[in-house]
Amino acid sequence: MILPRIRKYIPVLDWGRSYDRTAFGDDMVAAIIVTIMLIPQSLAYALLAGLPPEAGLYASIVPIILYAVFGTSRALAVGPVAVVSLMTAAAIGNVAEAGTIGYAVAALTLAALSGAILLAMGIFKLGFLANFLSHPVIAGFITASGILIAASQLKHILGVDADGHTLWEMVASLVAHLSSTNLVTLVIGASATVFLFWVRKGLKPTLRKLGVGARLADVMTKAGPVAAVIATTIAVWYFHLADVGVKIVGDVPQSLPPLTLPDFSPGLMSELLVPAILISVIGFVESISVAQTLAAKCRQRINPDQELIGLGAANLGAAFTGGYPVTGGFARSVVNFDAGAQTPAAGAFTAIGLAIAAIALTPLVYFLPKATLAATIIVAVLSLVDFSILKTSWRYSKADFVAVLATIILTLGFGVEVGVTSGVVLSIGLFLYRTSRPHIAEVGLVPSTQHFRNIKRHNVFTDPSVVTIRIDESLYFANARFLEDYILDRVVGEEKLRHVILMCSAINEIDLSALESLEAINHRLDEMGIALHLSEVKGPVMDRLKCAHFLEELTGKVFLSQYDAMSDLLKEPSVSVAPTSDADTATKPASKAV
Amino acid sequence: MILPRIRKYIPVLDWGRSYDRTAFGDDMVAAIIVTIMLIPQSLAYALLAGLPPEAGLYASIVPIILYAVFGTSRALAVGPVAVVSLMTAAAIGNVAEAGTIGYAVAALTLAALSGAILLAMGIFKLGFLANFLSHPVIAGFITASGILIAASQLKHILGVDADGHTLWEMVASLVAHLSSTNLVTLVIGASATVFLFWVRKGLKPTLRKLGVGARLADVMTKAGPVAAVIATTIAVWYFHLADVGVKIVGDVPQSLPPLTLPDFSPGLMSELLVPAILISVIGFVESISVAQTLAAKCRQRINPDQELIGLGAANLGAAFTGGYPVTGGFARSVVNFDAGAQTPAAGAFTAIGLAIAAIALTPLVYFLPKATLAATIIVAVLSLVDFSILKTSWRYSKADFVAVLATIILTLGFGVEVGVTSGVVLSIGLFLYRTSRPHIAEVGLVPSTQHFRNIKRHNVFTDPSVVTIRIDESLYFANARFLEDYILDRVVGEEKLRHVILMCSAINEIDLSALESLEAINHRLDEMGIALHLSEVKGPVMDRLKCAHFLEELTGKVFLSQYDAMSDLLKEPSVSVAPTSDADTATKPASKAV
Repeated sequence: MILPRIRKYIPVLDWGRSYDRTAFGDDMVAAIIVTIMLIPQSLAYALLAGLPPEAGLYASIVPIILYAVFGTSRALAVGPVAVVSLMTAAAIGNVAEAGTIGYAVAALTLAALSGAILLAMGIFKLGFLANFLSHPVIAGFITASGILIAASQLKHILGVDADGHTLWEMVASLVAHLSSTNLVTLVIGASATVFLFWVRKGLKPTLRKLGVGARLADVMTKAGPVAAVIATTIAVWYFHLADVGVKIVGDVPQSLPPLTLPDFSPGLMSELLVPAILISVIGFVESISVAQTLAAKCRQRINPDQELIGLGAANLGAAFTGGYPVTGGFARSVVNFDAGAQTPAAGAFTAIGLAIAAIALTPLVYFLPKATLAATIIVAVLSLVDFSILKTSWRYSKADFVAVLATIILTLGFGVEVGVTSGVVLSIGLFLYRTSRPHIAEVGLVPSTQHFRNIKRHNVFTDPSVVTIRIDESLYFANARFLEDYILDRVVGEEKLRHVILMCSAINEIDLSALESLEAINHRLDEMGIALHLSEVKGPVMDRLKCAHFLEELTGKVFLSQYDAMSDLLKEPSVSVAPTSDADTATKPASKAV
Repeated sequence: MILPRIRKYIPVLDWGRSYDRTAFGDDMVAAIIVTIMLIPQSLAYALLAGLPPEAGLYASIVPIILYAVFGTSRALAVGPVAVVSLMTAAAIGNVAEAGTIGYAVAALTLAALSGAILLAMGIFKLGFLANFLSHPVIAGFITASGILIAASQLKHILGVDADGHTLWEMVASLVAHLSSTNLVTLVIGASATVFLFWVRKGLKPTLRKLGVGARLADVMTKAGPVAAVIATTIAVWYFHLADVGVKIVGDVPQSLPPLTLPDFSPGLMSELLVPAILISVIGFVESISVAQTLAAKCRQRINPDQELIGLGAANLGAAFTGGYPVTGGFARSVVNFDAGAQTPAAGAFTAIGLAIAAIALTPLVYFLPKATLAATIIVAVLSLVDFSILKTSWRYSKADFVAVLATIILTLGFGVEVGVTSGVVLSIGLFLYRTSRPHIAEVGLVPSTQHFRNIKRHNVFTDPSVVTIRIDESLYFANARFLEDYILDRVVGEEKLRHVILMCSAINEIDLSALESLEAINHRLDEMGIALHLSEVKGPVMDRLKCAHFLEELTGKVFLSQYDAMSDLLKEPSVSVAPTSDADTATKPASKAV
């Protein structure tokens, strides 16, 4: 059968068949609300990416539809988002001059590349690669990006021409241009910002107090940006503020998304490859976490690899219809979900709404001041900024803290690409470092049980003729030598010592390098007249060892449990450990179970 | 007190004071034997590195003395070695033309750089970094290098001008020049090779049969290359073979190592930095493994970080006395050890011997044919070639096999630097991949014990209301999501399920990302009316968890042992599991201990 297999890759065939009028109604309402919210947002993010405003609208139309067809999340809204817009600006800024044709075309190429990358990751089931972005690194990166984005918009609020891809560059450039601040622009930008902050924080409670219904209050709050857009646009138009230097959006072509062809010249592609990979992974991580959060609320499961295919299709769509890299956005998705979207069809309806806007409404934004768009961006991204991760990670794990701090500082100081890359490399490096010098505990028998615990932490029985070492890590090339040194240093000068037991309860793997170290340890201990035993070896590890000669060479035995090992090795009457504890074990659990 | 601290960094102050006549005698004998062996070897390795022959002698004099002062191994002999000579040729070949002054100067810079790198690694105690070269990768790299080296010498045996840094390049170049083979050279080279192979394999047994003492037979075998050198040199001189195109060593300046100054121009340094790092690490790994093998034989311990300082000093010495990168070589060290060297003083005496050779004997090698030196190299390195690692790793671990195979193929196909780098990256990548999708086992109680084992492997008790999951890996960012998915998929549709126990006996660390996943799991299970419990949490892990809010939010309990967890959660009479097993536990271990 071919049909089921097709259906696997095209989820729409599943939910599409059971689509009915109620679902249609809910989707319709959600679509209208999201559309209202997306119009200013799309224009704003295009501005952030350094692209003409219509690019933001185009990037929200075809991609949404393609995701509706191939994606698995029912509430995810795909389109331009803040962080990816910033990364796009950073990536293209290196290959073309903002505002030029080349710049817009490079954006298409970037979208095409990341679309292809996402698609490939989905087809080859490489979604797991995103797991190598640790939560702290992501949190740090998002926070730092939020700051960078806000800083990048200040120039629009002040009405000056500043630039820079790092915080220092931006600040320096702003300070340098401060004198040429356009006061009218500043008034518009500042008041819009204040207004939007108030809408976000204060409006909803106020409306509820005035007896407005929760749902309506919510919609009105979401419409805040639109209000700001309308008010400032009218102001600029009525008072001819453009003549006094207030920068406005100006002409936006009235048309459906155009068919566009990215520039596939090898030179450009190779220059954009790395940024495209980063954008794909970051975009995927942002999208999947939003999708999973929303899916959890209604007991749905997200298929990460299918999500990759959905996002890949969306980005390819953006590349051929005048857009730029897109992904599942948090804000828009939550709005979509809260507004009661039932199926991806809601996305499709949103697309239609935006298409209408692109055809009919663009003349209305001619006088829209860029300062207002900047204000909407600033208010939106500052909600991303959250330094609490620093406190949490400091309290819980210094290694994670280092990774977060480095990510934040490097992102602010050297831009998004350096920041996220070094965050990933650093967290992997720190993990390798920790596993390369694992925690090793010497254990003894907990009285009245069959359990063995760290002699430093618990009051346990031990015997001078036996040392039991529990290594709390898989054995692999990076820590093989470490174990070798530890054991050989430990046994030096122990006259009474006859047996070393390696308690393997925490050893999940022994690679070839570690096996060679174990052979060396076994050999060296043998020379000292000490036998090496293993206990609590896991099934998979044992299967492996059976493929090697080590077990034949082993001077001691392999015990199923550490308790068996002790009672077997301490048979001599001199030792009262095993019996005593047995007696206790004999009574204690039984009585407990009664 | 300052003195002990100084002594820590200058081991000679320790063994120097207890130095006596017997030690002196033994060291002297060893020195003479090693010197005889080193003269042709040094010339040969210089040839391999593309440097004038004297560079090999110079690189063996001052470095040996400096290592004797700063090194910790008593038998290690420092100087030019095959693999490092090859890596030197590969590194410098990119920045200068072989035979030019620039080439020789670049060699000094390379030695200075790797000396500085080794010194820095030693001072900052970064010796552990070498552990990230897994044994299989090293084995594969050494084998491939042996083949490359042998191939690179064939041109001298044939007496043609071939070149290339990869196997294919070399072979192609040889084939292209085959027609211009110099038959006389071929005869000399071929017969020298055959003779040396025979010396290595057949001579010693023959001598013993003839009643020669073991020690003497050994010395004579080691002197084989010298015999070949003398014989062929005389032949070339007597029959004027240089006139018929046999390439000879020619003029070698009669002098002590000259004082030389490396070229420290930033351009050159940055070009040589990466090769220098690789040479340092590879050299250190080769040296430390030789040192540790020999130290083991006489119950000494090697201090890796002090070794780095010793090797660093040696390389700096080479840089300022007309040498090139050096390290502790296997062959020369073993000879030194077998010859009975007692202290590093043996090395110093060898240096004196070589210094005398550099002053007095160089005229004697004027007629020495390069073909003979090539033969000594080929015979020496072919003993490095060992493909058995492929078989071993294939049997034991496919991941290690992949790493070895890739290292061999890439080293042969793209040269030493690409080969070893990708070997390291690959083995780290494979380790991360494995830990990112760990082995997860569902466990049950082994009858008559307190032990829990995989339900798939053992016949164990379980109960429909409890699922116990043992994850055989530390929890960190790369596998956090994996665990989340596994548990949530597992519990779907289990009506009777009330408790999920996470058995943490194999969890050695829970990083912040994993903690967040655990919080998510706890939350999601709670929504389904299932409690999450932990058991057998390790001390260090528990300490960490206490720093977070997770334990307060946890819907279930934390049990010291999995057995306590089961007996606590299965109190209901309906369940007969715990009692039965208790009863058995009550009797069995006791009886066993009697």
